[in-house]
Amino acid sequence: MKRIGIIVNKSKPKAWIIARQIIRSLEHRNVKIVIDEFVAEQLGRSELGIPLFQIPKEADIIFALGGDGTLLGIARDFAPHNIPILGINVGNMGFLSESEPENLELAIDKVLSGQYYIEQRMMLEAQVVRNDAVIKQFIALNDVGIAKGAFSRMIEVIMFLEDKFLRSFKGDGLIIASPTGSTAYSLSAGGPIVTPDIDLILLTPICPHSLNVRPMVISGHSTIRTKLDATHDDLGLTIDGQLGFKLEIEDVITVKKSEYKTNLIRWHEHNFFEVVRRKLHN
Amino acid sequence: MKRIGIIVNKSKPKAWIIARQIIRSLEHRNVKIVIDEFVAEQLGRSELGIPLFQIPKEADIIFALGGDGTLLGIARDFAPHNIPILGINVGNMGFLSESEPENLELAIDKVLSGQYYIEQRMMLEAQVVRNDAVIKQFIALNDVGIAKGAFSRMIEVIMFLEDKFLRSFKGDGLIIASPTGSTAYSLSAGGPIVTPDIDLILLTPICPHSLNVRPMVISGHSTIRTKLDATHDDLGLTIDGQLGFKLEIEDVITVKKSEYKTNLIRWHEHNFFEVVRRKLHN
Amino acid sequence: MKRIGIIVNKSKPKAWIIARQIIRSLEHRNVKIVIDEFVAEQLGRSELGIPLFQIPKEADIIFALGGDGTLLGIARDFAPHNIPILGINVGNMGFLSESEPENLELAIDKVLSGQYYIEQRMMLEAQVVRNDAVIKQFIALNDVGIAKGAFSRMIEVIMFLEDKFLRSFKGDGLIIASPTGSTAYSLSAGGPIVTPDIDLILLTPICPHSLNVRPMVISGHSTIRTKLDATHDDLGLTIDGQLGFKLEIEDVITVKKSEYKTNLIRWHEHNFFEVVRRKLHN
Amino acid sequence: MKRIGIIVNKSKPKAWIIARQIIRSLEHRNVKIVIDEFVAEQLGRSELGIPLFQIPKEADIIFALGGDGTLLGIARDFAPHNIPILGINVGNMGFLSESEPENLELAIDKVLSGQYYIEQRMMLEAQVVRNDAVIKQFIALNDVGIAKGAFSRMIEVIMFLEDKFLRSFKGDGLIIASPTGSTAYSLSAGGPIVTPDIDLILLTPICPHSLNVRPMVISGHSTIRTKLDATHDDLGLTIDGQLGFKLEIEDVITVKKSEYKTNLIRWHEHNFFEVVRRKLHN
Repeated sequence: MKRIGIIVNKSKPKAWIIARQIIRSLEHRNVKIVIDEFVAEQLGRSELGIPLFQIPKEADIIFALGGDGTLLGIARDFAPHNIPILGINVGNMGFLSESEPENLELAIDKVLSGQYYIEQRMMLEAQVVRNDAVIKQFIALNDVGIAKGAFSRMIEVIMFLEDKFLRSFKGDGLIIASPTGSTAYSLSAGGPIVTPDIDLILLTPICPHSLNVRPMVISGHSTIRTKLDATHDDLGLTIDGQLGFKLEIEDVITVKKSEYKTNLIRWHEHNFFEVVRRKLHN
Repeated sequence: MKRIGIIVNKSKPKAWIIARQIIRSLEHRNVKIVIDEFVAEQLGRSELGIPLFQIPKEADIIFALGGDGTLLGIARDFAPHNIPILGINVGNMGFLSESEPENLELAIDKVLSGQYYIEQRMMLEAQVVRNDAVIKQFIALNDVGIAKGAFSRMIEVIMFLEDKFLRSFKGDGLIIASPTGSTAYSLSAGGPIVTPDIDLILLTPICPHSLNVRPMVISGHSTIRTKLDATHDDLGLTIDGQLGFKLEIEDVITVKKSEYKTNLIRWHEHNFFEVVRRKLHN
Repeated sequence: MKRIGIIVNKSKPKAWIIARQIIRSLEHRNVKIVIDEFVAEQLGRSELGIPLFQIPKEADIIFALGGDGTLLGIARDFAPHNIPILGINVGNMGFLSESEPENLELAIDKVLSGQYYIEQRMMLEAQVVRNDAVIKQFIALNDVGIAKGAFSRMIEVIMFLEDKFLRSFKGDGLIIASPTGSTAYSLSAGGPIVTPDIDLILLTPICPHSLNVRPMVISGHSTIRTKLDATHDDLGLTIDGQLGFKLEIEDVITVKKSEYKTNLIRWHEHNFFEVVRRKLHN
Repeated sequence: MKRIGIIVNKSKPKAWIIARQIIRSLEHRNVKIVIDEFVAEQLGRSELGIPLFQIPKEADIIFALGGDGTLLGIARDFAPHNIPILGINVGNMGFLSESEPENLELAIDKVLSGQYYIEQRMMLEAQVVRNDAVIKQFIALNDVGIAKGAFSRMIEVIMFLEDKFLRSFKGDGLIIASPTGSTAYSLSAGGPIVTPDIDLILLTPICPHSLNVRPMVISGHSTIRTKLDATHDDLGLTIDGQLGFKLEIEDVITVKKSEYKTNLIRWHEHNFFEVVRRKLHN
């Protein structure tokens, strides 16, 4: 019998309501449940609570109650555990979540009876190298952003592909995105929409001053190394638009495909462009 | 001993001069040469001439004297023969040609001694279906363009991916490009720059009236099917920007990866972005 | 008492229905009506019919029943007559029409009692010069397009501003647009949205091969002169996306602000951006 | 006899050298000179030094030695004084400077003999309103940027034109630019190139998440009012890319044409597009 771990976006009231429904439904089926201990306590079910980081060890499947933002965080945090995640969307339709709350019972049935398949999504691994040492490492599902701060002048971004000089340009920064991230920040900066099944990495410049710098698509087997030049040090790394890290001018940022993947539970072949049409093209 | 076929862009005087040099050099090395019969005659060497279409049967390697345009035509015409092509550039630097004329002797040495490697480039296959029958078939190295004429009103382009509706939009047309074609017409229409080694197809809308239609990247294993709607029939298919075919409003255009590839002779690992920088970013 | 001229988009059934209603309503108020003679006959009211070109002489105000396309044609044809036009929209909301059919009686009341104001829209004048003689002249409300045909290769567009060289570029062509035309073809090609009250001309390149060519905004007092270079003569001039004219390679195309304006009847200050939001941004 | 004020970009060694040459040349002609007191001291000419802010009161013409950045600062600081400025370019060619150092003697001759004309450039005035009070006021020559910080999530920008709702969008921010600013940050964000003589204001969204938000051009007589919405307060106002001001989430930012103009000294009709070609299109 599968064990289910439940993660809740605490800031969304609807997520709490759905969480109660799911717990009731799973207990009714005698399924083992584990919940983030803070959420468990709030729900008056402390006995189900365990520390968040232990959830992927005690569960076989994660139910993520929230939106794409919630799922991005879980995907990063649990990446090394290779655990399937069912995104249960409580807000607007998302690119990553599969189940809408109205189909909850059906969704639970399908998950427990194994009537689903796993869609694997490429993740990115970013390393910040300072004084020849890796001082920080990140996993991203959508993108790694390298950008100047709001008040600061343009920076120069110098890109290398497998140690060969690729191109440098002045501008606000660079987005290094996975196919999954192609519909996020990269799209706002002029990048193409990419179906999630292709093994590639997007390099999308942010407001480049040089007009002939354009979004670039490189192989998923590439390693992209980025150096910066600026007259200031108001420089930041952003992971999935959610985590920030202050960069210094001498830092080298290396990004490549992660060994980990996000495992999304899907009922049937996911119609990517249907979501694109509904999210972007209405 | 390798047999060399020589193709000359007849409109470029420099190509003729280089052709003479190459013939002299190859004969000096006792290499068998075949030449397009019209060119052979002009060069006073009718005995080397054979019909153009027979060249890939009588030669092991093609020397293409011209620019990227010349090479595009040869790549399409000789695609089923799977023959290596050395592009000898007689004009501005190209994306496809490898040898610059000043290094001619060295280039010939390397080719004859096998000191090269083959870079394979994906080609596209386009079919025009009219009344349920395939009435026309094309191979393209760069792109398949579907567009309205200069005087006509917008057309609606309706795209299907593996028979699933993808998106429709009004505009001037659609470019379906290989990675090689990413630096050609697709780039002018806002598409990304793609390294040639990724297995993908680009869908780049031309002047879309709907602002939220954007360049799309789909897997190289995809089949894209396109229908059109318009109040006129001033509709054309263009192959590599070189061949035109008049479409009718009921036609269905199917594009997928060709079983054939273009085999480019390269001396060493081709630095794609160096060419991009020199061609686009100067 | 004002005399009303009625123009009908013959291809839109709803326009015919509205035409009958308007005639009834106007006759009930003893207003003199003139109608295009073909339409009058179809409506069984031949006695109201006069040749189309005489309508602006016999009427004080035009009622244009159709969409933006209908109004564009009337604006061009009647430009020298300086006559107010009320666009009565029978399809989707338009940028140019003011009255929606449901408010027909109210609209007629307001027009007859002078409760409206005139919004003047800049028009463009285009001249084609061949062998130093003006061989053709056009007036446009939206735009003057200069473009290659569907099958042809890129053309070079060479632009001069008041006889000074401005810029040349290779690509599919150039759109020279008025502020009114900024939401039409120019927008599809990447041009900005311009409020109709500014005295400017837009120069929007179509799929420029040179990545650093961008939409340009020049003063409404400017004269833009364009020469072309191409290896073919599949070149066309398009007026408002409606009229076509075959260009030859030696032609010089001159575009400047017309001395005529389109006079649109408006009930109150037109909220341009509300229309933009509803048309483009939903 | 005209009195000359000299401003030097202290960080550019070449500016110091030119400053000495200019002083020598002007003294030779018995022209009165005033210099920023810190620069005067460094040059060993303390007797010519006065406080920077007094220069426009004691001088009739400013010689600005530096690049476009130097001139932007002087234009803002001295805006209320309505003083002609000659930009003497010591680095790469600029959009604002007129004299190249090699023509120094000729430039001085022309200025002293009045052989120049004044090109007036529109400036913008920005007000930050907090709790119904104007807490900060800026003048800008290029642009007023409103943007989120490097680590923060998208903000919502809500725009009003003369108190009418214009449009809201999510993204990185908004650039409100003068025609002069059209070749600066606005261009990087996708805005059009505008000749400096048109009375308009550019609204260029920065990385808008909504794909149908596009650069907009409004009349120079407009007042644009901007409100923000965000889940954070990492919000900044930037003037000409040089001055920063921390915004709070409830702030209202109002931008309109300033009553002041920048007065650039020009030898002859300035060929704007020649500079565009040389700066952007090389």
